[in-house]
Amino acid sequence: MSRSLVSPEVASLRPYEPGKPIDEVRRELGVEDPVKLASNENAWGPSPAAVKAIAEAAAEVHLYPDGAAFHLRQELAAHLDVEPGRIVFGNGSNELIELVVRAFALEGDNVVTSAVSFVAYKIATLAAGREFREAPVDDGLGIDLDAVLGRCDERTRVVFLANPNNPTGTHLEAAAVDAFVAALDERFGEDPPIVVLDEAYLEYVDSPAHPDALALVRRRPRTVALRTFSKAYGLAGARCGYGVTSPELADYLNRIREPFNLSNLAQAGARAALADQAHMEEAVAATLKERARVTGALKELGFRVTPSQANFVLADFQCDAAELHQELMKRGVITRPMKPYGLDRHLRVTIGRPEENDRFLDALTASFRRDAAE
Amino acid sequence: MSRSLVSPEVASLRPYEPGKPIDEVRRELGVEDPVKLASNENAWGPSPAAVKAIAEAAAEVHLYPDGAAFHLRQELAAHLDVEPGRIVFGNGSNELIELVVRAFALEGDNVVTSAVSFVAYKIATLAAGREFREAPVDDGLGIDLDAVLGRCDERTRVVFLANPNNPTGTHLEAAAVDAFVAALDERFGEDPPIVVLDEAYLEYVDSPAHPDALALVRRRPRTVALRTFSKAYGLAGARCGYGVTSPELADYLNRIREPFNLSNLAQAGARAALADQAHMEEAVAATLKERARVTGALKELGFRVTPSQANFVLADFQCDAAELHQELMKRGVITRPMKPYGLDRHLRVTIGRPEENDRFLDALTASFRRDAAE
Repeated sequence: MSRSLVSPEVASLRPYEPGKPIDEVRRELGVEDPVKLASNENAWGPSPAAVKAIAEAAAEVHLYPDGAAFHLRQELAAHLDVEPGRIVFGNGSNELIELVVRAFALEGDNVVTSAVSFVAYKIATLAAGREFREAPVDDGLGIDLDAVLGRCDERTRVVFLANPNNPTGTHLEAAAVDAFVAALDERFGEDPPIVVLDEAYLEYVDSPAHPDALALVRRRPRTVALRTFSKAYGLAGARCGYGVTSPELADYLNRIREPFNLSNLAQAGARAALADQAHMEEAVAATLKERARVTGALKELGFRVTPSQANFVLADFQCDAAELHQELMKRGVITRPMKPYGLDRHLRVTIGRPEENDRFLDALTASFRRDAAE
Repeated sequence: MSRSLVSPEVASLRPYEPGKPIDEVRRELGVEDPVKLASNENAWGPSPAAVKAIAEAAAEVHLYPDGAAFHLRQELAAHLDVEPGRIVFGNGSNELIELVVRAFALEGDNVVTSAVSFVAYKIATLAAGREFREAPVDDGLGIDLDAVLGRCDERTRVVFLANPNNPTGTHLEAAAVDAFVAALDERFGEDPPIVVLDEAYLEYVDSPAHPDALALVRRRPRTVALRTFSKAYGLAGARCGYGVTSPELADYLNRIREPFNLSNLAQAGARAALADQAHMEEAVAATLKERARVTGALKELGFRVTPSQANFVLADFQCDAAELHQELMKRGVITRPMKPYGLDRHLRVTIGRPEENDRFLDALTASFRRDAAE
């Protein structure tokens, strides 16, 4: 008999289930204008300057992109006040997650993260044929750093901490992260695991207790801060994320990445979006205002909402959330069921524009009214 | 002492050397309008409809792309006359090269290709921590399939054949590929290696003896045909390549790829470019005409040119090509030195528009005239 074509880890991965495009959903549901609150997109969109920059860059799309992303790198380094050589770009921060696993978790190593966190950590680890370990969350669905530490051993090479966390919206405060890193380094001495602070939702944080990930990167070389242009900067479709780390780790990541992993369109869009901080800040401010309003409305309706530092809220609807998800779909509102995370009564709902959030709240009320009438 | 952070293979990879953007080259050289014939780009550019489609898609760039590339998949499947489930998309065909290695070459396995071929095979293999094997080329710098077969053993999981080959422009004919595959399958029985036919330059082939890679994919499930929108379709900057393979292999590749590896901009551009076959065919026809002209002119100047089935020519200039490369640079013409491939007297020159090729031929003549005058 012939051997297996792929590793047991890859064999265990479920095939990717292709989502239907929005126009297909529209046709199937018979809903004219569905509201998509399922993917934590920025309903305010990117800076108009970014849209214009992409359209202009399209005129040079027959040329390969600048593989070093020279201009974007210089401008981002200046914006973040870090050395350009500390930055690694990726086709979305998802690619950085993969690169970190593939570069640093070797045969027999493992990768540790928290349960109820971003699914890309698991996919990247299993796709690389490495052991994936999850630590249970605390009672408030927050990341339990003691439990994470408990899952680490001498073969743990990478620890992923989504901060704020997706899909919960919770975040880890500076003191907790500092204590965790100190305990990790004490336990593993000169050869500690790489800690990845995935800050995809950073711009939506309003807690003053949030850690300064870039300061930690400077202090502790085996640290990677991940950021993205997909959320607050509104460029999810263009694919541009980045990591900030030590020059040594950045060098290794750059060795194994595709030379042209960042399109010229993404580079142009990201540069223009970065230059228009005012637009990004307005979109974030509007989101935070709506986050507070939606959270309040959900609480008033009697649901439990996990306090969120991101552009979405996770709520416990105290019912079969799969059914509620379908009810909302029928009313043209697409949310994200949390069954894959073991949360059967929860939905994750992206904070959209006021009128989109109204559509959600109205659909929610109508769904429960129907329930009560049955 | 702590263990190495990365695998020996990754440690052996040279860090990526960032190329300078064209505006930097312009400044440094003091040349107003340099001609870049170094990256096998399509000087005729993509269909204007593709540029327009990208600009329009920019208006929705705040939304995640369709991870399944539903519309592009349907349209490409119809165009190629293959089942949609046989297609896997990548962020350039470079990503497909990586995915194939990572999915199918496991710990202890090796990857085989020819010397003087596309460098991405080596980078992808070493980045994955796998053994990389090269077979020597034949006397005409063509891929020597007997030598490739000789490098294979029971731990060979992937064989890459660039057809046409980059940087030589040579191609393998159908009869040779058929005989190679038959010998491979006879030798390795039920568990033969995956053969990847990398056809990035397919559209520039005018030899009727070129194999039908898609027919081979149907006949032999462990075959992958790679194609791209970067060359003849003129979308190198957007990053869109794809593989056509058996449904089983496609399924594995889809499991390990990033869910959103293809931007909405790339999808929109590729759909429009695919729909405008006439534009692509005109650009290819113009390239072939110029390929014949440049080849003839080089031969007339006394240089040896490898017969090319691609949008570039490889020529032996019977001198130190590194110096010639510099001389041409000073005259504003950027070509590609072949020293990394062990060819010290060769340059690879992309076929550009007639006026660009004239610039190259003039600069070449001037460089040698200066040489003779010294």
